[in-house]
Amino acid sequence: MIKPNIPETNLKRIVIVGGGFAGITLAKKLIKLDYQIVMIDKNNYHQFQPLLYQVATGGLEPGSIAYPLRKIFPSHKNIHIRLAEVKGIDTISQHLETSIGHLNYDYLVIATGAVTNFFGNANMEKYAFGMKSVAEALDLRSIILQNFEEALLIEDEEKRDLLMNIVIVGGGATGVEVAGAISEMKRYVLPKDFPELDFTKMNIYLIESNERVLSAMSVESSTKAKKYLENMGIQVFTDTRVLDYDGETVTIKDRPSIKAAVLLWAAGIKGAVPTGFNTEVITRGNRIKCNQYNQVDGFENIFAIGDVAFITTSETPNGHPQVAPVGMQQADNLSNNFDRLLKNKPLVAFKYFDKGSMATVGRNKAVVEMSILKFGGFIAWLAWMFVHLMSIVGFRNRLAILMTWSYNYFRYDQALRLIIRPFERKKKFN
Amino acid sequence: MIKPNIPETNLKRIVIVGGGFAGITLAKKLIKLDYQIVMIDKNNYHQFQPLLYQVATGGLEPGSIAYPLRKIFPSHKNIHIRLAEVKGIDTISQHLETSIGHLNYDYLVIATGAVTNFFGNANMEKYAFGMKSVAEALDLRSIILQNFEEALLIEDEEKRDLLMNIVIVGGGATGVEVAGAISEMKRYVLPKDFPELDFTKMNIYLIESNERVLSAMSVESSTKAKKYLENMGIQVFTDTRVLDYDGETVTIKDRPSIKAAVLLWAAGIKGAVPTGFNTEVITRGNRIKCNQYNQVDGFENIFAIGDVAFITTSETPNGHPQVAPVGMQQADNLSNNFDRLLKNKPLVAFKYFDKGSMATVGRNKAVVEMSILKFGGFIAWLAWMFVHLMSIVGFRNRLAILMTWSYNYFRYDQALRLIIRPFERKKKFN
Repeated sequence: MIKPNIPETNLKRIVIVGGGFAGITLAKKLIKLDYQIVMIDKNNYHQFQPLLYQVATGGLEPGSIAYPLRKIFPSHKNIHIRLAEVKGIDTISQHLETSIGHLNYDYLVIATGAVTNFFGNANMEKYAFGMKSVAEALDLRSIILQNFEEALLIEDEEKRDLLMNIVIVGGGATGVEVAGAISEMKRYVLPKDFPELDFTKMNIYLIESNERVLSAMSVESSTKAKKYLENMGIQVFTDTRVLDYDGETVTIKDRPSIKAAVLLWAAGIKGAVPTGFNTEVITRGNRIKCNQYNQVDGFENIFAIGDVAFITTSETPNGHPQVAPVGMQQADNLSNNFDRLLKNKPLVAFKYFDKGSMATVGRNKAVVEMSILKFGGFIAWLAWMFVHLMSIVGFRNRLAILMTWSYNYFRYDQALRLIIRPFERKKKFN
Repeated sequence: MIKPNIPETNLKRIVIVGGGFAGITLAKKLIKLDYQIVMIDKNNYHQFQPLLYQVATGGLEPGSIAYPLRKIFPSHKNIHIRLAEVKGIDTISQHLETSIGHLNYDYLVIATGAVTNFFGNANMEKYAFGMKSVAEALDLRSIILQNFEEALLIEDEEKRDLLMNIVIVGGGATGVEVAGAISEMKRYVLPKDFPELDFTKMNIYLIESNERVLSAMSVESSTKAKKYLENMGIQVFTDTRVLDYDGETVTIKDRPSIKAAVLLWAAGIKGAVPTGFNTEVITRGNRIKCNQYNQVDGFENIFAIGDVAFITTSETPNGHPQVAPVGMQQADNLSNNFDRLLKNKPLVAFKYFDKGSMATVGRNKAVVEMSILKFGGFIAWLAWMFVHLMSIVGFRNRLAILMTWSYNYFRYDQALRLIIRPFERKKKFN
């Protein structure tokens, strides 16, 4: 029999589900207050999702963007971390059913983030790659390299070409950034590794259903990003809807289909609502409806923060953007409210302060928007690096990334082209 | 249909099987000569086995000790690297059957190294961990961390204790080094990560069937190493034979059995002879019998080098030690002989120059022997680090390891405590 084995104390227990940006920001503040904190996550590490694409393209080690949860709270007696998944929630008796047994709570915070949304397309779910976890990023890295290894072995020209093609669906920050990184592999790395292949045959497609890439940013930044991408040889299709994918042929609305052995789906996410959560409070994007205190609709002691939370205000009728700063600010506000609860003070409403947004396209190229300030190019690229470096948890990881970036920049070399665990492709071409 | 797709040229083709120390040392020299080189390996990277134990214990990233084979020979037109495994060898028509099809050779070099030898114990093979590959090292890292996570969930004291115990079988360099590294995790890292567990309950056993650890070194060094290990709290049993392991109980000859959820088997290796190789030339330790030119018994155009090769001389009646320097020196000699073949000169016999041996036990502690010079302690530890750092392939990896070691040394922290892909244990204790 296993069970969570959390000691019973006089303190009220706050159970936090999820060790992402929102979850760890909250926990770091709460351990200073008189609560007992329990954090559960299915992984033993926090992952820095904005740089997953660099793991996928051989630029960074997984260990540079993942950080052990326990290392965040060394020797701390007041927080109990458990590797577990939620299987059910009983809001009457106030407990979770989890993969490690029954877990009581006084307060529950759902900070489970978001997962890839294939919008119900079973083929896409089977054949496309997502990029929301370190394991997925490593799979993508492996399959890209495996495809080139396999292309060497194939005489049939059409089949060889399709092994070299990569389609990225979704022109948000992830899609733009990964397209740029793959284009740099094509330019600087792959021809040296595979001198026997003809890289003029390799095509990188970025397909966006909106009329522009980076549609959350200004028209100016979108235009700039699209120009950067096209100058790097990426075929950018906007206003274009991908209909289906069978592991080989990408079917596109009102356009000829494309053959490609890799399709990366970066065209949507949905809230990762835990199993057993009351479906009545789920709203658009599979997010959990909350009031302005991040309290889940109908509950005083259950909260949701981060990508999974949905708060409508007059300024955010469709909820807040699903980005790290929102989750971290909600965590800050919620920790303050937990403090106020101890002091019997009324709760304070969440207010989002938008610091801006940014995306990088490749060496020396990025677009940045900070309130009325909009800029691109080299300075934007430096700003992008600085902000990402500073957001990484842990001195060691910051240093490791800085070293690796410097190396990659000066050597034009994403060195980590390792297939440690080969990915078993669902479709064979030989 | 896939096939190796190697162009036919006027040059004689040398097929090298295996990209370990011997294989890459040979290939680096041969690409300068008038041969066509084909290298096949089942991985797309070279791995630095002497530091695998640091990957297993969270000290180093896999990417620091693995190096893409293609990166060793960038843009080189005269070497063809293929991911493939040998399935059969036809010495009459001079071709290999491989996982990617039929491959002709003029000369064949077997440099396939060695794998863990469980000496036919099926239980051991099923439940014990080996440590001869990056994937195995990552599995070991995961299971050690998973066991502590699970120990938190178990109330039964005996079962909890067994999850914390680790048995290492084999007191050679690998066994000694991994025991030291685990002991440092126990001392500096795990108690901070798991303040809820009682680490006086964690036992590390090092069991050696010989009468001393590091039996390839002098009695003096053995004694010193054993003292280091015992001072670090490791229970060292020499002259002790492990008989069996069922995933929970380690049965030992003439001693009480030990309960432990992890058993690392570092007590023997055997030559990794490719499938289909003529069994008549296989000798002790599953190695391939060669003459002093590394020619396989009975063949003029088939060679074996490195751990898989077995050459008896009056000085080495049991073959050469299975260490990297032997393989690299054999590769050097063989490349010279390939040059002589082109010039119709007679072959030169291999002669091993023993530079000495070394093993580290932990922070500031190592033993080193270089001909008549024997020393231990801090200077030996610095020498150990220097030699290993200089033997690593690639500037980037050298830099990454130096940085990581400095960090680990000053912070007392093996930071990479990540369970990226959980290991499915064959035995459950709950």
